[in-house]
Amino acid sequence: MFAKEVYNNRRNELALTLRSGILLFMGNEESPINFKDNTYHFRQDSTFLYYFALNEPHLAALIDLDEQKAIVFGDEMSLDDIVWMGRQETLKEKCASVGLDFLQASSELENYLGRARAKGRQIHFLPPYRSENKIRLSQALGLAIDELPGSASITFTKAVIAQRSIKSAEEIHEINQAASISADIHHLIMQTAKPGQTERDLVASIQQAAVASGGQLAYPAIVTTRGQILHNHYYGNTLKEGQLVLNDSGVETALGYAGDLTRTFPVSKKFTTNQKEVYDIVLEAYNQAVKLLSNGVLYLDVHLKACKTLAYGLKDMGLMKGNIDDAVALGAHALFFQCGTGHMMGLDVHDMEDLGEIYVGYTDKLNKNTTQFGLKSLRLGKKLESGYVVTVEPGLYFIPELIDQWGASKQFGDYINYDKLEAFRDFSGIRIEDDFLITPNGHEMLGKHLAMTTDEIEAIRAEAF
Amino acid sequence: MFAKEVYNNRRNELALTLRSGILLFMGNEESPINFKDNTYHFRQDSTFLYYFALNEPHLAALIDLDEQKAIVFGDEMSLDDIVWMGRQETLKEKCASVGLDFLQASSELENYLGRARAKGRQIHFLPPYRSENKIRLSQALGLAIDELPGSASITFTKAVIAQRSIKSAEEIHEINQAASISADIHHLIMQTAKPGQTERDLVASIQQAAVASGGQLAYPAIVTTRGQILHNHYYGNTLKEGQLVLNDSGVETALGYAGDLTRTFPVSKKFTTNQKEVYDIVLEAYNQAVKLLSNGVLYLDVHLKACKTLAYGLKDMGLMKGNIDDAVALGAHALFFQCGTGHMMGLDVHDMEDLGEIYVGYTDKLNKNTTQFGLKSLRLGKKLESGYVVTVEPGLYFIPELIDQWGASKQFGDYINYDKLEAFRDFSGIRIEDDFLITPNGHEMLGKHLAMTTDEIEAIRAEAF
Repeated sequence: MFAKEVYNNRRNELALTLRSGILLFMGNEESPINFKDNTYHFRQDSTFLYYFALNEPHLAALIDLDEQKAIVFGDEMSLDDIVWMGRQETLKEKCASVGLDFLQASSELENYLGRARAKGRQIHFLPPYRSENKIRLSQALGLAIDELPGSASITFTKAVIAQRSIKSAEEIHEINQAASISADIHHLIMQTAKPGQTERDLVASIQQAAVASGGQLAYPAIVTTRGQILHNHYYGNTLKEGQLVLNDSGVETALGYAGDLTRTFPVSKKFTTNQKEVYDIVLEAYNQAVKLLSNGVLYLDVHLKACKTLAYGLKDMGLMKGNIDDAVALGAHALFFQCGTGHMMGLDVHDMEDLGEIYVGYTDKLNKNTTQFGLKSLRLGKKLESGYVVTVEPGLYFIPELIDQWGASKQFGDYINYDKLEAFRDFSGIRIEDDFLITPNGHEMLGKHLAMTTDEIEAIRAEAF
Repeated sequence: MFAKEVYNNRRNELALTLRSGILLFMGNEESPINFKDNTYHFRQDSTFLYYFALNEPHLAALIDLDEQKAIVFGDEMSLDDIVWMGRQETLKEKCASVGLDFLQASSELENYLGRARAKGRQIHFLPPYRSENKIRLSQALGLAIDELPGSASITFTKAVIAQRSIKSAEEIHEINQAASISADIHHLIMQTAKPGQTERDLVASIQQAAVASGGQLAYPAIVTTRGQILHNHYYGNTLKEGQLVLNDSGVETALGYAGDLTRTFPVSKKFTTNQKEVYDIVLEAYNQAVKLLSNGVLYLDVHLKACKTLAYGLKDMGLMKGNIDDAVALGAHALFFQCGTGHMMGLDVHDMEDLGEIYVGYTDKLNKNTTQFGLKSLRLGKKLESGYVVTVEPGLYFIPELIDQWGASKQFGDYINYDKLEAFRDFSGIRIEDDFLITPNGHEMLGKHLAMTTDEIEAIRAEAF
């Protein structure tokens, strides 16, 4: 964990933005696989990590703003626990190391909140995403589970988002680490993947490297010869010469900070001419988008720049036509680029996603376009600030089902050359993604350089054969 | 999945044991890591797999005994889903392939159950272990979450346990596969682990091999130089010459069947004399216990045989003394063997654990001893039947905290040589575990042979140096 002062300062800063009441933080419980005591690897809630650093299940905490006191609710290990799980630092010791002097039994939480409710005090809580915490909150606050989302505190949520959005030096160091380790793993896969292996073989190696690094995968790896499937977690295909492999994977460090990288490389030693042509369009979109990244720039504009660059490239290839600025404004390019150019990143790979995209990625004045295909999947639109960490990840995806659907009604027929498109039905997809820190006058790529041009990638692929 | 008939037969057999009412089966939902859409690898509920084979989230099913009809509740993919996740076989097609002709939208489940409740029909459900399903059941059945455990159907639970306890030929084939793959991985680790590596390095390799095999780890691997910590999931220690590594890990196959193996090997090329002496006691307990395995034998007796063999061995070493049969009857040996000799295994590594150990491992007439330290951790006591799959996993564990606690009051001082024990405080622990099918006249080890004697293990360890 970071130094004690980091957590003290975070809690103090938060306390200043909300004057009175109780701020409630739920830690995560263990998550059962197929029975209660067989659990997935434990992952603490990110906001809980951010303010309290305590990385174990069955904890809750609160900041009582009126009493000016932070209290952790949790239980020390019994001798039985020690026999089964080994002696560890006591919870009291762990609390002390992050500046927390008040520890109560977990069973006391409900009493504490009950007394506060009886006095009509305000209890601020964040929207829960795990069902264990929905149940715990429902019981502790006397609210039906359905009432929880609507009763979560917007001021508390916004205050947490404001703080977590601006990454401190320690956090940037961690994300940099995560991105560098992820880059090493990408390099290794690019260097070793062979025709005849399955996607699963690659995923297994990625997972191995992530765990050996002392962390975990930050999200389920997307490793696929069918890169057009945006959230593809099927790993059963065999790598064949002539195909592309899209590898979207990143690790999180032991402290929980994510890296999120994508590279696309040929199964063969070299890209085909077609693949290179499409790849270079995506790379140009990546470069144009990255160039814009700076404090004060609307991320929506970064996205639109990427979209236009892609669309101009597709026009050069003859797949799009007409006035490209109009085409992008109308969303015609979304046949090939169905998602957003990037998102915030930090303790979560989609940072703070469950605190609400409307606050994390947009503002009261800049609302998300929730109707236009493409834009409705853009997680981040608002003005970038120094200290934000964001991804840039343009791509081109040829989705047969979508081509068929749009093609049937010649949707955006003024802008799309459906005839020429037929030859690309089975092209699959290409994405290039890196992580960036926004600085006062520009940006900084996080993590070490990872092969990006087709020349760089082919040089590494040659080592696999 | 297995052939359609397997599932049809299972459902029909179950239907015969419960005459009327509705049998409700909840599939598992996705399990969020740090936000709703970032999920752990999906694992279907084992009972749902057993009767319905459908391996995807957001499903439920029921068998309406009065209507003689099985209905699945779930939703087909939308075009949006296909864009994001790729086209797959339809749910209707998947249902048909396991003999399920009736599919309704997931939203219909609550209506169906509502109508049944209104008519006063009995709805049998199994005790839920995942919070998502606690919430779904609570809402669908109009029961408070706290009421669910007490309202779950004991007849239904017992009928499922009776069926799942007896493994069919297809299941034995799968478990055999799981055990063989697990044995290969154990062999690899034994062959490659080197001083200076961390426990985490070994876990990473185990995970890699499990995923590459097409499955997953069946449970979080225990890979530790501190084998006395029974549920040790800390992987931060470095392997040092002179230490032992306890590796308790197993894979589950793509169909969900588990393997569960443990081996303990020296970090150095050879066991020390002390280590060999303790190892051979555990091996003798393993052999004695295995020899007893057969249809009609009480597993409690298998356990006690293992305990006595361990205790006699400890007496030979001078760590125990006095009348060993009395010592075991009183539980004095539990200072060194705190847990049970084994458990049922199948679709769950602790098979059906959340359906209730009192039914899975015991009977109305043979209750678990819930007070004696050691016996209270024995998951399986009842009479073995042909078709059961069980583990045998005796061990000796030197737990400093427990030695101190018992030693302070000279607990079982007539049977334990506390003076001599001091030298073993930091010995750590040894366990040997394999999986067995109970047959009409004996047993059959599942999976391929894995090095077990100290000679066999040292021969493999020599390859690592």
